[in-house]
Amino acid sequence: MIIDCHGHYTTAPKALEEWRNKQIAGIKDPAVMPKPSDLKISDDELRESIEKNQLRLMNERGSDLTIFSPRASFMAHHIGDFNVSATWSAICNELCYRVSQLFPDRFTPAAMLPQSPGVDPKTCIPELEKCVNEYGNIGINLNPDPSGGHWNSPPLSDRHWYPIYEKMVEYDIPAMIHVSTSCNPCFHTTGAHYLNADTTAFMQCLTSDLFKDFPSLRFIIPHGGGAAPYHWGRFRGLAQELKKPLLKDHLLNNIYFDTCVYHQPGIDLLTKVIPVENILFASEMIGAVRGIDPETGHYYDDTKRYVESAAVSDADRYKIYEGNARRVFPRLDRALKARGK
Amino acid sequence: MIIDCHGHYTTAPKALEEWRNKQIAGIKDPAVMPKPSDLKISDDELRESIEKNQLRLMNERGSDLTIFSPRASFMAHHIGDFNVSATWSAICNELCYRVSQLFPDRFTPAAMLPQSPGVDPKTCIPELEKCVNEYGNIGINLNPDPSGGHWNSPPLSDRHWYPIYEKMVEYDIPAMIHVSTSCNPCFHTTGAHYLNADTTAFMQCLTSDLFKDFPSLRFIIPHGGGAAPYHWGRFRGLAQELKKPLLKDHLLNNIYFDTCVYHQPGIDLLTKVIPVENILFASEMIGAVRGIDPETGHYYDDTKRYVESAAVSDADRYKIYEGNARRVFPRLDRALKARGK
Repeated sequence: MIIDCHGHYTTAPKALEEWRNKQIAGIKDPAVMPKPSDLKISDDELRESIEKNQLRLMNERGSDLTIFSPRASFMAHHIGDFNVSATWSAICNELCYRVSQLFPDRFTPAAMLPQSPGVDPKTCIPELEKCVNEYGNIGINLNPDPSGGHWNSPPLSDRHWYPIYEKMVEYDIPAMIHVSTSCNPCFHTTGAHYLNADTTAFMQCLTSDLFKDFPSLRFIIPHGGGAAPYHWGRFRGLAQELKKPLLKDHLLNNIYFDTCVYHQPGIDLLTKVIPVENILFASEMIGAVRGIDPETGHYYDDTKRYVESAAVSDADRYKIYEGNARRVFPRLDRALKARGK
Repeated sequence: MIIDCHGHYTTAPKALEEWRNKQIAGIKDPAVMPKPSDLKISDDELRESIEKNQLRLMNERGSDLTIFSPRASFMAHHIGDFNVSATWSAICNELCYRVSQLFPDRFTPAAMLPQSPGVDPKTCIPELEKCVNEYGNIGINLNPDPSGGHWNSPPLSDRHWYPIYEKMVEYDIPAMIHVSTSCNPCFHTTGAHYLNADTTAFMQCLTSDLFKDFPSLRFIIPHGGGAAPYHWGRFRGLAQELKKPLLKDHLLNNIYFDTCVYHQPGIDLLTKVIPVENILFASEMIGAVRGIDPETGHYYDDTKRYVESAAVSDADRYKIYEGNARRVFPRLDRALKARGK
């Protein structure tokens, strides 16, 4: 079984974006603020948006199940206040839930949170609880920078974030650490801000003792861990300077990297440097890089091809494809077992 | 000949730091502001600080010449106003110049600029001119984020920076794009901010047509290019989405990466993915990672060992060690030739 742990609903029907644009207009002019019930998307429209896109590519490429969350770049937690984020999160999470109900063997939902800059993260708990208890979400996406590129929240090691972590531990769910759109002109969203956030989050964990406070907390750092595996020697050396334990003891019981690295040499480095137990298969398809690589004739984001060609044993490839995901997402494992898988 | 294109004067006599601390105190209390002439460092002190440190390691490891600039983390352009930065830059650049005079065959200077947040970069030109014309500097360090982690300057592609570029083109000198200390608690200086800046700068160039305006402008992106080589497929794909030319045509006539990647798999990826013409040998020794790697028994930052073991031909290794540096730093090449080298 091949589980893609990183998929976003990037192909939602246009009505969603139109509703969002009205909501953004409504921040300035309450008279035009739409109601959630104004958004009408039928099951057929959802089905079509998936069958023609993610499901088609999953079938072509041979992956079985996608952990599916709202479009990362559209979370845009910096827009409006908490209520704007709360309404928008509820709508986006409901759509991913409906997709998972329409294709229960192929999509399982992970939740975005109604984060808002400067607002206590504990305000996200009710949406998180609903998504887990009512929608069967098996993980969340946590944005370490809800400002969208201004980085004015405390680091992930700060107690600011502990209410989220306490709930994650209670529910035994991991978080993918994933920023959203950059509204800072210095940072291109998918070419700089995403990768910077991955590296930043990793280093915030490295310099802290967060996982002493939460030994069972689990973070997935997407996009192959940003710059971390490429600079693994640097990070090992920095941990040493800071008198921290070896990274494998200090961080690798709690941090996992996905395989969203869009060329063979990158995946080769990832699988060589990072213990296989800490690597989860993912493509972030259909996402930032949708084209065909002229050097290979295949989609850049068809990461399964790279994992197939990486120098790992079949037993290790099983861990990357399925075994690790079942361990990192215990609620997914239970749901699969309940369906005899 | 082995040229290390990335060395900072991290081992300057303590008097320098003490002077700087007084200067910082003087920002609030002008009565305690020191004069530049209050800083007394003898040639013997300079000699000792170099012979016991960088020069000793250069001899042990077998590198010949270091391009030597003021300590990056101490540039701290966010402290004080332009005058504070101007005085501090002048002092730091003078020290590197004096080191280059004491060890003319082993150190050649590159300048820091008196950048200051919100101040027009053209104010840096007089210091730059002095460093090139009087001190024989062959390159500069350009900080894309003088705020120290708040990223509120325009991207490097903005005309804001053009006065610097015009002078660089006139003088035929390259810039290493190098940030300084982070004063944003989200970003660890050497574990996140440095690498993020590298990735950010690369993407700022990618999304722009900067090198159409300045076809002969040359940037060195340090620390192995941040996350760029590891995610080379992503960047190739993003350039394709943005309808830009192939990266080799769009950026690689102007952008170079150094070898400050502190483990063998990282250097292996760098030399595999990036054309050898775009790789410059460097160690950033003595810098962020000073320890010995328990996995190898050698210093993490002894990058020559990794380059020696990389799968490149002797002809290509010559380019990495010497040939490319002579091409990217023409003033260095001329100075070497003038000394019969």
